[in-house]
Amino acid sequence: MKISARNVLKGTIVEVVKGATTAHVRLDVGGSVVTAAITNEAVDELKLAVGGAAYAVVKSSDVMIAVD
Amino acid sequence: MKISARNVLKGTIVEVVKGATTAHVRLDVGGSVVTAAITNEAVDELKLAVGGAAYAVVKSSDVMIAVD
Amino acid sequence: MKISARNVLKGTIVEVVKGATTAHVRLDVGGSVVTAAITNEAVDELKLAVGGAAYAVVKSSDVMIAVD
Amino acid sequence: MKISARNVLKGTIVEVVKGATTAHVRLDVGGSVVTAAITNEAVDELKLAVGGAAYAVVKSSDVMIAVD
Amino acid sequence: MKISARNVLKGTIVEVVKGATTAHVRLDVGGSVVTAAITNEAVDELKLAVGGAAYAVVKSSDVMIAVD
Amino acid sequence: MKISARNVLKGTIVEVVKGATTAHVRLDVGGSVVTAAITNEAVDELKLAVGGAAYAVVKSSDVMIAVD
Repeated sequence: MKISARNVLKGTIVEVVKGATTAHVRLDVGGSVVTAAITNEAVDELKLAVGGAAYAVVKSSDVMIAVD
Repeated sequence: MKISARNVLKGTIVEVVKGATTAHVRLDVGGSVVTAAITNEAVDELKLAVGGAAYAVVKSSDVMIAVD
Repeated sequence: MKISARNVLKGTIVEVVKGATTAHVRLDVGGSVVTAAITNEAVDELKLAVGGAAYAVVKSSDVMIAVD
Repeated sequence: MKISARNVLKGTIVEVVKGATTAHVRLDVGGSVVTAAITNEAVDELKLAVGGAAYAVVKSSDVMIAVD
Repeated sequence: MKISARNVLKGTIVEVVKGATTAHVRLDVGGSVVTAAITNEAVDELKLAVGGAAYAVVKSSDVMIAVD
Repeated sequence: MKISARNVLKGTIVEVVKGATTAHVRLDVGGSVVTAAITNEAVDELKLAVGGAAYAVVKSSDVMIAVD
């Protein structure tokens, strides 16, 4: 499946923390750690575990820019 | 200003393309190119230009995870 | 590619309207018309055209519920 | 109340699952199941229950398009 | 229509700027100016004009918190 | 840090409710109460507590407009 989202960043899963309905998954993407909040159901369905390869997918309209 | 968004990724601006109201700004973040869609007004206010240092800021609830 | 977004709705493209940087793509999903705002670049990359099969992908945290 | 969101999809509630602060509500929309992540507070305020009629509301800038 | 979004802020329209597909609408909400990026189509459908009463609607998962 | 988000609304924290992974933080912004859903981690990192000064930050593409 190809997706319209402009940001599909390849990385390695470094942490998975499940809450009651929402899980936090952290990915190492070229030295930067990216945090995703997804459903517990998605974690199970995609069999996400530490050490696995995965992509962080972000729509460009959800990315802000900041400067010092 | 410190922000609750979990993803504040430092990079370098590699492209700025303005539309009628919306601009696309691309950042090199550790070798990955991240695309943001922000307002033209923000580009002017933050004086964004190619070569400048900037951060890509993304809320964790806006990040999805995908696997092959 | 499998994605964590809970909403992957199969449909048929019924309209593609390009703006300066942002395009509006409409999909018929089981009789309901779903509108997406994506980049012109994504329209070209995914070769989106009227009559083509496509999915509307939406993160559950971006879906609201309303009642009369 | 009329809203600017382009996607207001009528359906029937088929599931409501409450977490600690976030609830997952599933709607059957013309045969497709749409999942929303909303606050527990909203579930109570809108009196959402299985079998009830409701709308899935999504801003077009939150809809992505994917193709096989 | 009642909606699950936790933020429904009443205000007065102070500006409407249309782009190619996306419009920027500014609302005065209790002295703070709130900017929305919506489709031109929605501006026409809701007959939005300066001086009109309107609500800024934001899902709580789209609100970040920052501190100095 | 200056950010591209068009909505940076100054207010006072009136409530902080932590869930399993997600917290709800409410801010009084000029008489309107704005609710944010952020991570528990962000609440701790930014030391958010009732009575503290803070900003509600929202990207304009995440703001919808509604009318009666």
